[in-house]
This record gives sequence, structure tokens and C-alpha cells, in this order.
Amino acid sequence: MIEPLDLPSSASVVDCAAYCGGIRVADLAIDQIRGALARDDQFVWLGLYEPEQDVLRQVQHQFGLHDLAIEDAYNAHQRPKLELYEDAVFVVLRTAHLAVAPRHLEFGETHIFLGRNYLVTVRHGSLRSHIGVRQRCESTPHLLSKGPGYVLYALMDFVVDQYLPIVQHIEQEVEDLEDVIFSMTDTDEATARIYHLKRDLLALRRTVAPLVEVCNRLMRFDLPHIPEDTRIYFRDVYDHIVRLNETIDAQRELLTTALEAHLSLMSHAQNEHMKRITAWAAMIAVPTMIAGVYGMNFRNMPELNWAYGYHTSLVVMVTACVGLYVGFKRSGWL
Amino acid sequence: MIEPLDLPSSASVVDCAAYCGGIRVADLAIDQIRGALARDDQFVWLGLYEPEQDVLRQVQHQFGLHDLAIEDAYNAHQRPKLELYEDAVFVVLRTAHLAVAPRHLEFGETHIFLGRNYLVTVRHGSLRSHIGVRQRCESTPHLLSKGPGYVLYALMDFVVDQYLPIVQHIEQEVEDLEDVIFSMTDTDEATARIYHLKRDLLALRRTVAPLVEVCNRLMRFDLPHIPEDTRIYFRDVYDHIVRLNETIDAQRELLTTALEAHLSLMSHAQNEHMKRITAWAAMIAVPTMIAGVYGMNFRNMPELNWAYGYHTSLVVMVTACVGLYVGFKRSGWL
Amino acid sequence: MIEPLDLPSSASVVDCAAYCGGIRVADLAIDQIRGALARDDQFVWLGLYEPEQDVLRQVQHQFGLHDLAIEDAYNAHQRPKLELYEDAVFVVLRTAHLAVAPRHLEFGETHIFLGRNYLVTVRHGSLRSHIGVRQRCESTPHLLSKGPGYVLYALMDFVVDQYLPIVQHIEQEVEDLEDVIFSMTDTDEATARIYHLKRDLLALRRTVAPLVEVCNRLMRFDLPHIPEDTRIYFRDVYDHIVRLNETIDAQRELLTTALEAHLSLMSHAQNEHMKRITAWAAMIAVPTMIAGVYGMNFRNMPELNWAYGYHTSLVVMVTACVGLYVGFKRSGWL
Amino acid sequence: MIEPLDLPSSASVVDCAAYCGGIRVADLAIDQIRGALARDDQFVWLGLYEPEQDVLRQVQHQFGLHDLAIEDAYNAHQRPKLELYEDAVFVVLRTAHLAVAPRHLEFGETHIFLGRNYLVTVRHGSLRSHIGVRQRCESTPHLLSKGPGYVLYALMDFVVDQYLPIVQHIEQEVEDLEDVIFSMTDTDEATARIYHLKRDLLALRRTVAPLVEVCNRLMRFDLPHIPEDTRIYFRDVYDHIVRLNETIDAQRELLTTALEAHLSLMSHAQNEHMKRITAWAAMIAVPTMIAGVYGMNFRNMPELNWAYGYHTSLVVMVTACVGLYVGFKRSGWL
Amino acid sequence: MIEPLDLPSSASVVDCAAYCGGIRVADLAIDQIRGALARDDQFVWLGLYEPEQDVLRQVQHQFGLHDLAIEDAYNAHQRPKLELYEDAVFVVLRTAHLAVAPRHLEFGETHIFLGRNYLVTVRHGSLRSHIGVRQRCESTPHLLSKGPGYVLYALMDFVVDQYLPIVQHIEQEVEDLEDVIFSMTDTDEATARIYHLKRDLLALRRTVAPLVEVCNRLMRFDLPHIPEDTRIYFRDVYDHIVRLNETIDAQRELLTTALEAHLSLMSHAQNEHMKRITAWAAMIAVPTMIAGVYGMNFRNMPELNWAYGYHTSLVVMVTACVGLYVGFKRSGWL
Repeated sequence: MIEPLDLPSSASVVDCAAYCGGIRVADLAIDQIRGALARDDQFVWLGLYEPEQDVLRQVQHQFGLHDLAIEDAYNAHQRPKLELYEDAVFVVLRTAHLAVAPRHLEFGETHIFLGRNYLVTVRHGSLRSHIGVRQRCESTPHLLSKGPGYVLYALMDFVVDQYLPIVQHIEQEVEDLEDVIFSMTDTDEATARIYHLKRDLLALRRTVAPLVEVCNRLMRFDLPHIPEDTRIYFRDVYDHIVRLNETIDAQRELLTTALEAHLSLMSHAQNEHMKRITAWAAMIAVPTMIAGVYGMNFRNMPELNWAYGYHTSLVVMVTACVGLYVGFKRSGWL
Repeated sequence: MIEPLDLPSSASVVDCAAYCGGIRVADLAIDQIRGALARDDQFVWLGLYEPEQDVLRQVQHQFGLHDLAIEDAYNAHQRPKLELYEDAVFVVLRTAHLAVAPRHLEFGETHIFLGRNYLVTVRHGSLRSHIGVRQRCESTPHLLSKGPGYVLYALMDFVVDQYLPIVQHIEQEVEDLEDVIFSMTDTDEATARIYHLKRDLLALRRTVAPLVEVCNRLMRFDLPHIPEDTRIYFRDVYDHIVRLNETIDAQRELLTTALEAHLSLMSHAQNEHMKRITAWAAMIAVPTMIAGVYGMNFRNMPELNWAYGYHTSLVVMVTACVGLYVGFKRSGWL
Repeated sequence: MIEPLDLPSSASVVDCAAYCGGIRVADLAIDQIRGALARDDQFVWLGLYEPEQDVLRQVQHQFGLHDLAIEDAYNAHQRPKLELYEDAVFVVLRTAHLAVAPRHLEFGETHIFLGRNYLVTVRHGSLRSHIGVRQRCESTPHLLSKGPGYVLYALMDFVVDQYLPIVQHIEQEVEDLEDVIFSMTDTDEATARIYHLKRDLLALRRTVAPLVEVCNRLMRFDLPHIPEDTRIYFRDVYDHIVRLNETIDAQRELLTTALEAHLSLMSHAQNEHMKRITAWAAMIAVPTMIAGVYGMNFRNMPELNWAYGYHTSLVVMVTACVGLYVGFKRSGWL
Repeated sequence: MIEPLDLPSSASVVDCAAYCGGIRVADLAIDQIRGALARDDQFVWLGLYEPEQDVLRQVQHQFGLHDLAIEDAYNAHQRPKLELYEDAVFVVLRTAHLAVAPRHLEFGETHIFLGRNYLVTVRHGSLRSHIGVRQRCESTPHLLSKGPGYVLYALMDFVVDQYLPIVQHIEQEVEDLEDVIFSMTDTDEATARIYHLKRDLLALRRTVAPLVEVCNRLMRFDLPHIPEDTRIYFRDVYDHIVRLNETIDAQRELLTTALEAHLSLMSHAQNEHMKRITAWAAMIAVPTMIAGVYGMNFRNMPELNWAYGYHTSLVVMVTACVGLYVGFKRSGWL
Repeated sequence: MIEPLDLPSSASVVDCAAYCGGIRVADLAIDQIRGALARDDQFVWLGLYEPEQDVLRQVQHQFGLHDLAIEDAYNAHQRPKLELYEDAVFVVLRTAHLAVAPRHLEFGETHIFLGRNYLVTVRHGSLRSHIGVRQRCESTPHLLSKGPGYVLYALMDFVVDQYLPIVQHIEQEVEDLEDVIFSMTDTDEATARIYHLKRDLLALRRTVAPLVEVCNRLMRFDLPHIPEDTRIYFRDVYDHIVRLNETIDAQRELLTTALEAHLSLMSHAQNEHMKRITAWAAMIAVPTMIAGVYGMNFRNMPELNWAYGYHTSLVVMVTACVGLYVGFKRSGWL
């Protein structure tokens, strides 16, 4: 029953199959979906990647999806949410990826339509496909047989698992930053890094925080198409999200303190510099003043005629400097 | 049935028409409204722009609106809200516009009276009329036939859509600001810009945030005159508003951090200046001191009589300066 | 039935009258109140200003008010609140007034006892009497005929309307402050003004914020003696209060940012000063050093014997200064 | 029935009596309590001060108190709370006292056990005994006859009334601080005082804030042993606590602003110092430079041979200084 | 019935016993557990320490535990929580330990499975075993006879009791820090300590705060296997946690203020330094200038020929310095 996808726009269809009792029973072309949905003992799982509008229209037609949800799925730029359309659950997730060079966060979106016997995913911008999720699901038929509700869990788990290494990476960066700050090296860059880490955390938070409510609804309320025995799995996802949220908030507060500590350290350094500079300046200014005095051209300056006047003046200068040095050393200015 | 509007105060009436099954069936003068309202199969949509009190009184009389709501609509300066008067829903929205020269935010107000078979809009200060909304509604009769509740949605969607480009513009400005701050150019202006952006965000927030509750009531509770099947549309508006709110809050926090980072960077720059200044000052002060010593007038100063005393002293000065330069370079003060 | 008030303590009684169907039917002495209350078709409105304890005791006796409420009304220094005593509603409002010379906020208190057919106001410290409220009420008998519940609204509206000009005045002051801050004139005074504005806002907030709950109870719940058709009026007061609250909070946040921006600007100014000072210091120090060199007394200093050695040295000094000037100008230090 | 207390550990028993109809009918020894409790028409009021464990055990035995509550009462260091043990209400209050030399806050604890016909207080660390409360209660038998629930109110009122002068004292200190800060005298001490005031406010808040919930339960819910007609009294206490809380929070925010304003003022002062120092430095450096020039030893320096060269040079120096002085004065640096 | 544990993986089994009526009746090997569970009159208490996966699998098999809970217990890195699996309560606690050299916080985890007649603990990273808890429980059979619900309380109490000394230690450190800050000694280290204390408090908070909800559920709702009469014990734990939470939050706010006060003090110190430096610089610069003037080589300088010109100049210099000294002293610059 596997057929080549001959529709022109099918490039955006990643995979489409029917499952019965957790077993993949058929690969489907888009126009075969409606037929497959008519059978009560199986469900259809369709994966799309940045589909054109006409593909989405076909999909909408096949599954009978709501206009507004399709619009959202086409436009992307939605916040994570769960919405209920008469007979379908519509979930929006944001995927996150930490790009290395230059280091920055990239966000994508995954839109999921969940019906009684179907699940449609529309992926935008995300770099990692859901092929892995599908393979893992297909390898555990006893779980997949729970239906599309379980697939929704598998997808959410997959997306949420991508957040963890990012948050851990940021935690590590904050820890590294502490060393930079308290060793007072490279302080200029430290400020910029604090700012950018905070910006990243704010962006991550907007990705993670709305999922608390999404999971709450999935594990607590009577949503359609979520079998009773998969709710416990969503509680697991919920747990991860709450932990991520807590970590993000703690890191944000820590960064604020780090910035303040940084300012405080620099203010302290400035005081130290000022003291040291002053001490050295005094040690130059005093001999200069003495030299100035004996540079005066008064006719009657007895010291000038002393045999060792010059040497005496040098000794006075050096003594003054040593005295100042010791004094400053004692009072902690040097 | 189309007649010229011959009332003296009608300058503030933008458009007034009756709709039946989503089709515009009659243009109405203010004194014809009551007659049109008597017919059960149609609804009246009246648009006013900064009406005089006497026009508002006429309108109040025709539609039977409540005193307090009319007062609000006349005075403007209301916060966004939704109120229920026995038989009518009264909604206040704030419109926003980003003026370019000089760059500043302008706010207007739109007051909407929604009854069983009528909708009245009173626009204040807003630059963009609702003509576009009316045209779009009239071009989709199957949606307009849902009644005045759908028109309310169309108006809210129109107003909320105006916020997005403003918020995006501010986001872009914040991003531009980062470059200014971290390149340490034009830092004085940066502070003023941060302040003004924060002020704008606070003003926007007061415009956007109360709409969360307005939408909540429109999509969740049993308000009169809001047909069941339009609630889903208000959920869409709700979603936009929540996203705007989140963006506004994130940008506010980011600006606070930016200001602190700015301060930190300037404190750092000050330390750097201080170090560099000190280094150069030392390199001038040391030769000056040496020169002072040999400017003394002691009779017995052996060095003065040396054949190359002068040259030696110059070499000592230069050596001291080079030594200081290398020392300062090494310890990062230059 | 109008009689002279012959009680010794009646100096604190501002006005006391019975109303029937919204019309003033009798002026009452304190000891006539009980008689008037016995009649079912009228209500009594008594206005007191900083009454002595004995007057209050008489009033308590006449109206049958609760001990604790009377104690509150005597002591003043209550926070705004609404309390229910078996058969009476007790409301505390704080009045605010912006004194001009020296500019500061003054607060007073108004305590209101509302019963089935009476309303007692006890005014403390407030400069503006409620005579205007009474006159306005008496001039609209159709509204006054709603009973003492309507009078409560009129009083609250009167008190809340006094907040608006104060808040607007503070808003204007904050705006003026921005100019002072960003033009960097009079910066010392700016800090003090920010502080005092913040203190005023905190005081105002404690006056306004508790009214949210008071209004909430008046407009939502089934309080006795508040007729159904006056609740809509309290909603109007509620709206004003929420707006005031939002403005106060926004101004508070703005002032915080203003203080930080102020600090940032001053830090920036310090950097600029430091650069400019350094540049000019260098331009004085370099010629001084050169002069020092040629002030040395070495026997063998060839330049000293040059015909134009002195002029050359002057040219070198000026050239060094011009060079430094140009260099500093280019790098933005001047 | 009055007997000497002959138990060894009775030193910690402050007073113990039975009351009937609001009248003190008997002084009791600890081992007589059980007997007194058996009579239905009276209640027992026992006051303890830092009792030994064995006394507490006896008391527990006499009244039949719960193990955990007794443990709490012995250990102290509890947060203010209200707990329900089957047949008894257990209340923990913290007492506060402002010690003068050195100025610091002292906290004590009062634990109260309230049963159907008894009330036990255990006082720790508090300096002021409850004798006054007992005397006041005994002097108003009509109130005391309401039973132990009224005594609980009297005790709470007594404890809460101690907070007010402390908070007012802190308010006054904050006000005094403003003068210190804005007059820029003694600024170093100001910082320490701000910090210590904030610490005190935080400690007070932990003492006061939990009482909101305690009062809430006492005035709203159906707790045993709190007669219906005493709930109104707890509302009065509630009111005081909310006001204290609001004052504490406002002062905290004010102190934060004061600290920031302080920093801003000092940054401003620094700029002013810097300007003034620079101006005076320039006025010394310029003549020094000129003097340096004419201290050079070039053979051919025409000015040196002028009859009034020296006087001219002095005039030039003074003129330069005056010029600088005027210039700095004009640009506000002096 | 005590047998040697001969299973290879049993190294991670700390203790395993059956209890009947609060008395230890048998030591069990893992494979004997199922048999013991079949008896209704006893419960099994198994303690594990960082078990291998195969041991956990055996335990899961013996007790019939849920997959997800076992996974959590194996992976650790959970946040404190309470979860319900059909027939079992799953509790995660975090243990905390303050290591001394170098001073830092160490966190461990304890996972607890509570069933009708069993309790399993899985300890990770925690340094202190639960042996003490078991011994204390076994020594109070009347409490232990309440069943595994009581053991859960004993474990929570044990874990929570470990937090208190840590929080107290941090409180002490904050207090010590105050002295360091206000004496302005070692200020650089103070900043780092503030930062690290704040980081520790944030970490502790994430350990303690989630327990509020855990305790709430244990003491309020109808969880299985928690006997009615042990709920009162969980209220005690709840109380400790709320107090810890309050202390942590207060210390956090105090540290923020400390950091700001620190910055303020340093800014003040900088101003003081600047004044003092300037004063001393002036006292050196003025004689230098005077000396410069009399070092000029003008032919006609009358003072040079005065008999006591030199001495006069010295007197002038000293007089100028003394004058400056007195002036600076008076205006508080010295």
C-alpha cells in the first residue's frame, strides 16, 4: 500500500502513516488520509515541515481542522499554548537550539493537531526533525498503541528534553563568569556576557513558562483524546518544566547579583587605584618640591654653599620618599 | 432608503447603516435608527468620531444607552475595560500609534456599545478610521451575518493588530541600543533612550494589559450578544494580547539590565581611563623630578661639571620613562 | 420643624437634615434624630467635623452605632476600609490635598456610617467640606431619592475626584524632571525631587489602593442599604480608582528608572570630565617638563648656547601642545 | 480557696485564677486546676513565664494539652501562627521591644492555649508581663464574661499595640534620615542607618505579617471557643495589623529609594569635587609652567634682560589665574 | 528469620526489616519482601543507598512500583515533590550539607516510596544515613506502630532538621559580613562573600520552597497511607519549612541591601579620598609654584637680592601650607 507521493507540494510532507495497535500498517499520501481516518481501529500520524499554504489547505480538508488553528500553524510566531477546537486539541511548542558560532539561541516552532484518531505535526525552523521520535514510538508498540495522545507526550518530551542542555550550558556559563568577575580579568567582556545571558534566559523563559499551564491542562483536566493512563506521563513532563523554570529564575536573580557585585568590585578597584596612584604621586611630588626650593635664585641661600648641601638635599629627598612609602604601606594605601 | 444626513451635528457621524444577513441594506440618518432597531432581522452599525455632546445625546436616545456609559464615551480618558449595562455591553479600547518626528507614542480611544441588534463605535484621537474594518466585514457577509458580536471582534482585532508593529519596533530599538551600549559610543544618548523606551513600554503596558481581562470575559463567560461561535475568535485576540504582554515585560526587564550594564561598563571605562592617565602622568612626572634635581643651585654638585652630565641625565630620564612604559604595559595599565 | 441647635457641643455639627423622596424636609438638632429615624419614609443625613467625644456619644446613642466604629471615628488614623456592623455599613476614606508652599501632601479622613435610613459623616483634617456634595445631591432629588446609599456614592465620588489632580500634578512633575535630568542642570535637586515624588506616590498609594477592595464589595456583593440600581455608580468609582492605581504604579517605576538613568548620566559626565581634565593637564605638564630640562644647571648643555635655543624650545613646547590637542580632539577626549 | 503555691517549680507561674461570670472567684495552685476545669460555669486563666519543662508537663497534664504544642511552647523560636488541636486553639505571638542603648529590636514570644473553659499563656523573653491585661480584663467583667475567647483578643490587642510605637519610631527615623541624606552631612553613618533600619523592618515584618492570617482565621472561620460576638474585636486587631504591614512595606521601599538617592547624591558630589579640584589645579599649574619657562638657562632669552621682565611675568601669571578663575566660575566649575 | 543477604547487588541495601505493632520482627533479604508484604499485620521498611539499576528492578518487582517513579529514583536530579501513583505515594526530598573546606553547600536526594504496608527509601549523595531515624523509630514502638506514614514523617523531620543549622550559619555569616562592610575592611572579599551567600540561599530556596506544597498535601488532603493522626506531625514539619523559607527570603533581601550599602560606602570613601588627596596635593603644589617663581632667571628680581629673601620665601611657603591645612581642616576635607 506504499505509494510514491506524487503531489507537487508534497516536499513538505516528512512522513505520513497509519498505525493500528501500535504497528505501522500503511504509508499514506495526503489524499488517502480521509479514507484511513474512516477506519476506527487505526490512527494517522502526519509530519509536515514548513508546509506551503496549499498543502496545509489539503491537510485541513483531510482532517477537518479549524480555520484559525490552520492560520496559526501557517504563520507560526505563536506562543506555546494548548487550545481546544470542538473535536481537536491544538498544541503549540517552541523548540530551542544553542548555536555555537556565534553563540546564540535559535527558536523554532512545532504545532500539533491531536484528534480522536490522528496527530498532525507542523514544524517551523526547528533544526532537529521528529524522525527520532517516530522511530522510538514505533519501537515500543505497546506504548504507541495507547493512541495519538501518547505520541503527543513523546513529542513534548522530545522538545522539553532539548531545553535541559541549554539551561545547563547557561548555568555553566554563569559559573565561569563568577571566576572572571572575582578575578577581575576581562571585566568589560563580563558585563556584555551577563547581559546576553540574561537576554537568553528571558527568551528561554518565554519558551518554557507557558508550558506549565499546557501540562497542567494535559495532566489534570478532562481533555479529549488524552487517555487516562497517559496523564501520568504528562506529569513527568510537567516536572521537568517546573525544574527548568526554577533554574531559569534562579540564574536570572544570580546574574542580577553578579552585575551588582561586578559594579561593587570595580568601585572597590577604583578606590584601590586611587590610593596607590596618590601614594606614588606624593613620592614624586615631595622631592620635586624640595628640588624646586633649592632651584630658587636667592642670593643668600646658605645651604647652597655648604660643601655637602647637595648630598644632604638628596638624602632628605630619599628619606622623605622612604618615610612616605612606609607610611602609605602601613595605612594600606600601597 | 439612502438619504442625505441633514442634521447639523452630523459631521461627527462617520457611517451609519443597517445590516441584514450580513448585507448592508440601508444607510441611516441618526433619527432613523430607532425605526431600524425595531426590526428584528437586522442590526445597525453606527460609527462616530469625536462627537459633540448633542450628537451623543441623540445617539443615546435612539439606542437607549446608559447615562454613565455615554459620559465615559464623551469624556474619553478611560482605561480599557468591559462593562455590562443591563442590556448592553460597553467596551473601551485604547489605540496606539508610533509617531516618527519626533519619535513618540500617541494614544487614542475607541468606545464600543454592543446591543442585541446594534453596535456603536465612538472614536477619539485615533488617527486610523475603522472604515477598513467595515469594508472588510462587508466583504465577508457570511461572517458579518453572525451579528454585532462579530463586528466587535473585528474592531478589537484591528486595534490589537496596531500594537504589534509598535512592540516590534521597540524590540528592534532595544537591540540597536545593545550595540550602542557595548561599543560605548554615544553613551549619553543611550541612557536617555533607555529611559524613553521604558516609559513607552509602561504606557503600552497600561494599554495592553487590561485587555487580558476584557478578552477573558468575552471568551469565557456568558456575555449577552456574543454568539457562541465567535468566542473562538476572541480567544485568538486573547492570544495576541498575552504575547504582547510577555514581550513588553521581557523588554522592560531587559532595559533595566541594559541600564545596569551601561553603568557597569562606564565604571569599567573609568577605571581604564584612570590607569592610563596615571601611567602617562608618571612618565611625565619622573623626568620633571630629575630635571628639578639638576636645576638646584648647590655650589657643589659634581654631576653638573661632568662633560656628559647633561647627556647622562637625558639618558636616565628616557630610560626611566621606557622602564615605566614597559612596566605599565605589562601590568595592563596601558 | 426647623429649630436652632442649642446643644453646647453642636459646633462640630456641620449640617443635619431629614430627606423624604429626595427633598430636604427638616433640619434636625441631634436629639431630634431618633424621632426622625422612627419615620419609615425619610432618611437622616448628619455631617460632623472633628467632633468631641461627647457629641459622638450622643450621635452613637441616637443612631445606635457600634462601639468599635465610634472609637475608630474618634481616633481617626484608620486605613481606608469598609466594615459591616450588624445593621450598619462603616466606610473610612482618606482625603488628600496638595499644599503648595512648601509643596507637600496633606491627608484627612472621612468616616461614614450608613444605615437603613441614615448616613453620618465624620470629617477629620480634610480642608474641603462636603457642603458641595450635599448641595449637588439636593439639586437632583430624583437621584437623592434612591436613599443614603446614593449619598455614599456621591461622597466617595467627591473624595476620589480629589485624587486625580494630585496624580496628574505628580505626572507633570515627573515629566518636568526628565528635562532637568537629561539636560544635566540642577542635578542635585533632581535627586531630592525624585525621592520626594516617590514618597508622595507611596503615601497616595496607601490612600488609593485599599479603595479597590472597598468598591469591589460595594459593587459586587449584597451589602445592606446599597440599592441595586446604585451599584453601577460604584463601578464608576472603581474604575477611577483602578486608573489612579495604575498611574501611581507606573510613575513609581518610572521614577526608579529616572534615578538609575540619573546615576548613569552622572557616571558618564564623570568620565567626560576625567578625559577633558587629563587632556588639559597633559598640555600643561609637557611644556613644564621641557622647561624643567632646560632649567638644569649642567655646565655642558649645548642647546643653552644656541642663538635661538630659547625660541626653539618655545616652538617645541607649543608644537607638543598643539599635537596633544589635536590627538585628544581626535580621540574624543576634548 | 486561695492557697499558697507550694510547688517547687511554681516560680514560673505568674498568676492562676478561676473566673465565673467575668469575676475572679479563686486563685489556684497548679494541681487544683483540673478540679476547677470540671465546673462548667467558670474558666481558668493561667499565666506562665519561661517555665521549666516539669512545670509545663504538669500544666499539660492538668489541661490535657497536645504533646507537639507543649514542645513548641517549651522551645520557643516559633513563627506567629494559629493551630488547632482537636479541642484546643494554640496561638503563637511574637512580642517586640525597641531597646535604646544600643538601639536594637528585641523579640519575645507568647504562646497561648485556648480551650473551652481555660486559657494558658506562656511568655518567653518578653519584658512586659501580661499583668496589665489581666487587670484591665478583671475591671470589665461584662466583657470578661464572654469567656477565654475575649481574653485571647485582649492579649493579641496588647501585643499588637506594642508594635505601633516601634513602627512609628522607625518612620520618624526614616524622616530624620532624609534630612541627613539631602544635607549631605554624616553620609557614611547614613548608609549604616539605612541598612539597620531595613534589617529591623524585615525582622518586624516577619513578626507582623503572619498575624494577618491568624486574625483572618479568628474573625472569619468557625473556630471553637471564639464566641460569635468577639469576632468583631479580632477584626479590629486585623485592621491594625494590615496598617502596620502597609507602613512597614512602604518604609522598606522608601529606604531602598533613599539608598539609591544617597548614591546618586554622592556621585553628584564627586563630580562637583572633581570640577572644583581641576579648576584650582589649573590655577596653580599655569603659573608654575610659566615660571618653569623663565627658569630655563638659555643664554639668549631676551625677556630675562628686560627691566620689568620679572614684573611682567608676574602680571601674566596673575592675569592667567584670574582669567581661568572667571572662566571656571562662568561654566559652573567653581 | 534473620539471614545473610547473599544477592550480589545487595551492597546498596542498607537495611531491610519487617515491623509488626511497632516492633522489628524480621530482617529481610530483597527476595523475601514479597512474602512479608502478603501479611496484613506488618509493614516492610527498606533502605537503599545509590542502588544499581538491577537492584532497583528487583525492588520494583517486589513492591510493584511504577516505572516512572523508579526511573526518577535511579536518575536522581529531581526537584522535591510528592506524586501519587495509583496505590503508592512517591516523595522526593533534597538533603543539604554545609561542607567546611572549602566552604560550600552539598546537596543529596532521598526518594521515598510509601505504600499501604511498606516504605522504601533511596538515598543519593547524602552523607548522613537514615540509620539514626530507624533507631529512633524503633525505640518508640507506640509511634512506629502508626505504620509507614509515621516513618515518612520521621524521615522528613530528619531531613528538614538538617536545613536549620545551615540557614542559621548563613544568618551568622550575614551578620559577620555587616561588621566587615561597615568597618570597611577587606571590602573586596565582602563582595564575593555576599555573592556566594546569595547563591547558596538561592540553592537552598529551591530545596526548601517546594516542600511547602508537599507538606500541604500531606497535612490537608486525603492522601492514602497517611493515617489521620499523623497529619498533625506533618503540620509541624510544615511550620519549620515556612520559617526556613521566611528566613531565606529575608536574608536574600538583606544581602541585596548589603551590596547596595557596600557600594554606597565605597562611593563615600572615594569622595573622602578625593578630598584628602586634593588637600595634600594643594599643600605640595603651592610651595612648588612659589619656588618656581623664584627659580626664574630674570635679571631684575629685587627679592633675590634681599638679605633674607630666601628665608622670607620659606616663611611664605610654610604660611601658605598652614593656611591651606587649616582651611581644609575646617571644611572637612582633611
